[in-house]
Amino acid sequence: MFRHSQLESVKAWIAHPAHAAMSLHVRIQRGIRQMIVNGALGPGKPLPASRALATSLGVSRDTIEAAYAKLHAEGFIDRRVGSGSFVAQMTEFAPGHRRSRRDALLRRQAPKLSQRGNAMFSSGGVREALSPRPFSPGVPETRTFPLQLWEKLERQVRREVGTQVLTHGDPQGTEALRRAIADYVNLERGAHATADRVLILTSSQQAMMLCANMLLDPGDRIFIEDPAYHGARKTFDAAGLECIPIRVDRQGIVVEQILAEPRNTKAVSLTPSHQFPTGATLVLERRLALIEWAARHKAWIIEDDYDSEFHYVGKPTACIQGLDPHDRTIYIGTFTKSLFPGLRIGYAVLPPQLVESMTVARTLIDGHSAPMAQLTLARFMEGGHFGAYVRTMRGIYAQRLDALADLVQKHLSDFIEPRIPVGGLQMPCRLICDLSERVVVDAGRRVGIELLGLSALHATGDAEAGFLMGFAAYTPTEIQIAVMKLANAFRTVTNP
Amino acid sequence: MFRHSQLESVKAWIAHPAHAAMSLHVRIQRGIRQMIVNGALGPGKPLPASRALATSLGVSRDTIEAAYAKLHAEGFIDRRVGSGSFVAQMTEFAPGHRRSRRDALLRRQAPKLSQRGNAMFSSGGVREALSPRPFSPGVPETRTFPLQLWEKLERQVRREVGTQVLTHGDPQGTEALRRAIADYVNLERGAHATADRVLILTSSQQAMMLCANMLLDPGDRIFIEDPAYHGARKTFDAAGLECIPIRVDRQGIVVEQILAEPRNTKAVSLTPSHQFPTGATLVLERRLALIEWAARHKAWIIEDDYDSEFHYVGKPTACIQGLDPHDRTIYIGTFTKSLFPGLRIGYAVLPPQLVESMTVARTLIDGHSAPMAQLTLARFMEGGHFGAYVRTMRGIYAQRLDALADLVQKHLSDFIEPRIPVGGLQMPCRLICDLSERVVVDAGRRVGIELLGLSALHATGDAEAGFLMGFAAYTPTEIQIAVMKLANAFRTVTNP
Repeated sequence: MFRHSQLESVKAWIAHPAHAAMSLHVRIQRGIRQMIVNGALGPGKPLPASRALATSLGVSRDTIEAAYAKLHAEGFIDRRVGSGSFVAQMTEFAPGHRRSRRDALLRRQAPKLSQRGNAMFSSGGVREALSPRPFSPGVPETRTFPLQLWEKLERQVRREVGTQVLTHGDPQGTEALRRAIADYVNLERGAHATADRVLILTSSQQAMMLCANMLLDPGDRIFIEDPAYHGARKTFDAAGLECIPIRVDRQGIVVEQILAEPRNTKAVSLTPSHQFPTGATLVLERRLALIEWAARHKAWIIEDDYDSEFHYVGKPTACIQGLDPHDRTIYIGTFTKSLFPGLRIGYAVLPPQLVESMTVARTLIDGHSAPMAQLTLARFMEGGHFGAYVRTMRGIYAQRLDALADLVQKHLSDFIEPRIPVGGLQMPCRLICDLSERVVVDAGRRVGIELLGLSALHATGDAEAGFLMGFAAYTPTEIQIAVMKLANAFRTVTNP
Repeated sequence: MFRHSQLESVKAWIAHPAHAAMSLHVRIQRGIRQMIVNGALGPGKPLPASRALATSLGVSRDTIEAAYAKLHAEGFIDRRVGSGSFVAQMTEFAPGHRRSRRDALLRRQAPKLSQRGNAMFSSGGVREALSPRPFSPGVPETRTFPLQLWEKLERQVRREVGTQVLTHGDPQGTEALRRAIADYVNLERGAHATADRVLILTSSQQAMMLCANMLLDPGDRIFIEDPAYHGARKTFDAAGLECIPIRVDRQGIVVEQILAEPRNTKAVSLTPSHQFPTGATLVLERRLALIEWAARHKAWIIEDDYDSEFHYVGKPTACIQGLDPHDRTIYIGTFTKSLFPGLRIGYAVLPPQLVESMTVARTLIDGHSAPMAQLTLARFMEGGHFGAYVRTMRGIYAQRLDALADLVQKHLSDFIEPRIPVGGLQMPCRLICDLSERVVVDAGRRVGIELLGLSALHATGDAEAGFLMGFAAYTPTEIQIAVMKLANAFRTVTNP
């Protein structure tokens, strides 16, 4: 005995064009199953007699019997001789709306995770801005990306490679891209890479996670910068490592502190090109000292060169990897900043002795990267488009940094002092007024502006208050509007 | 004093069109740096006097001085007053060819990994066939994929979404795809899914790795099928879990053994639709018993539904997830088999209480999946193309299975007995001759045919000898040729 609405819902299911390919009894069976699953038919509820439902739907009784038999075989209904068919008790689905309320309640419950699962969860993860607002840091400009050129190269790849592009890819990455990357980092970063040493990954985040797990065990010590990129720290925390924060000054990480550390420490993770968040470039003597330290202790240097493409003052310093004759450095690069985040291609240049094991690990964690994107990117690089694009964006970002620095000087100099970086996509600012960091960050958020407070990036509590301002993804006009808003917001909280 | 070839190499570097955007002194500096890095200029080697090199290259002496100054600042050369410039001793780069021989030697060295890194490495990973040869199992046909339709949908997405598609994606996956997947699994698999519960991943491998790490700690016990998919077992081994193998019969995993296990076991991982490798479908009573067991012990059911789309005999059974009212089941699906491996999209339908933590974990392990592929796939599904494609391929695969079974009966019946499965992409065969599994697998490989031996998939040593024959990716003609080759190869090893 279906209610009218229930009957209509079965009829609608049967008539739906998406289900046209199914035979009639399957459509009826699926329609009723759906009602059971979503709670429209509760446990124990009787189903119409097959003869009655056949009449209502204008189909043969055999069709209904076939549908019921299938539902019975699947365990969704019980059939009792003489009294008909009933929704099975085991399918304890709550009615639809109650079910989703229950879902919502359950979602908020603390799940029973493993200890390492809890470590991952409690880190809070690394959420990136989906629709970046000024001044979300680390976001590149993507609105002017040459999408048509990219599409053209994609078509070329498809024409030449055909459906071969649909098959499994090499877990180390396609050869053409590995070669293009090796050429690029050798030329532009003074690295010592070959295609054989490059491992293509989805992101520098994945590279970091691989290093943390493949090279260190829970409880192992790793030096990190203080302040540090939160994504790196969270990754190492989640991997169960003990992070030893090392102070950063204007010359980068203070290597003397590392050399003075008496405890066995397996690795150091750093951002030597433009330290995150201070923007400092690690000086050569410290690079060399770090290399010697790593060689002496058989420790690893994890060099995160995440936005070295964007260096505005002079030429960037050669990377540590290229200076390291002892093969203790893992160089991590990404196209998230230099091209676009949705590409999902990052990479590591590995010491030869780690190539095989890291590739095996990649097959276990998620297999390999999509060949299509890799081949398109390889062509983008081979054709000189990557170099040209980076040069163009470097000019644009340099102008935007200038614009931001000028506007901050002009409108925000009562509140903050900018520290103009030599490169990168964000400018650190130090608070020089009586407002607390939390107050200014909140004031910004209320007017739609994202400021990343610096305190949270520091391991110790005595950090200078301030925040990061990302500038790359916003035009000078957008930057101007946002700075004016911010000036107003700061004045409002100063004199409420 | 450069040798002629060295001078030519610097000149070539300067003249290379890819370097046209650099200023002259940078080109010279980079050219020399490259020679140092690749070993063409060894440590301690003198560089030409700046005046001499200026003359050789036809540039001003200032230009050479600027290049040398930069090389010095970077640590690549030493400058000694009165005696000129020398390649620095710290750059102990071996000459080019020796360097690559050294790389090759180092690659073969056992690297010093963490304990968990060694567990990952020693599992051997999950290598997929790059250019599948008959009868590599688990490979779908991709040569007939409607690539043009796919490209058309991509263009639509780009036209509508524009450069927004280049930005960071939702780490849980784009809403449109999550909705399309929820609709699909509800309709076709009798699942109980909503878009809110779907987590988009790169592969079922990634889903498995997430489950193993987020839900279980090293030393925790998990039930696995015996025989089992090697990728699953390797994943659990790499995660440090203790795998408890449970026998599989014609009705799927023998749940009685699970119920009889006295030790606390946190999860069960299984392939209920078409058990890998036996092809058995788990019967309903066992599904229900498993659900009860999981609810009682607060254990997890990891349901890997990797190729349920391809069921040839009758309709597939509804998935465990849809029958489980207690939210203990994680349903894992993938488009690797139903569409193509290079897509890199898999997913999990999660219990509500796990959605947040698994999404946070995804941000830490590799961020998110490329929005472009997700939006194109969502459109492919919404437009009914996915359903149509799967129906077409199901018909094709059913014919290929028939063809293979007939050919095996006709030409290989002296050696093997096929076990024709009700679904999936591979057919298990039992050896019924005196040849050992290793001998027949090797005999196949010698004639370019891949057979996956069954013994290695068994936890215990008393497995029946045999192998898997993948049939989906090969036309009936290709199958015929391969079977004839195999028959010859088997005869040769029988009567050498």
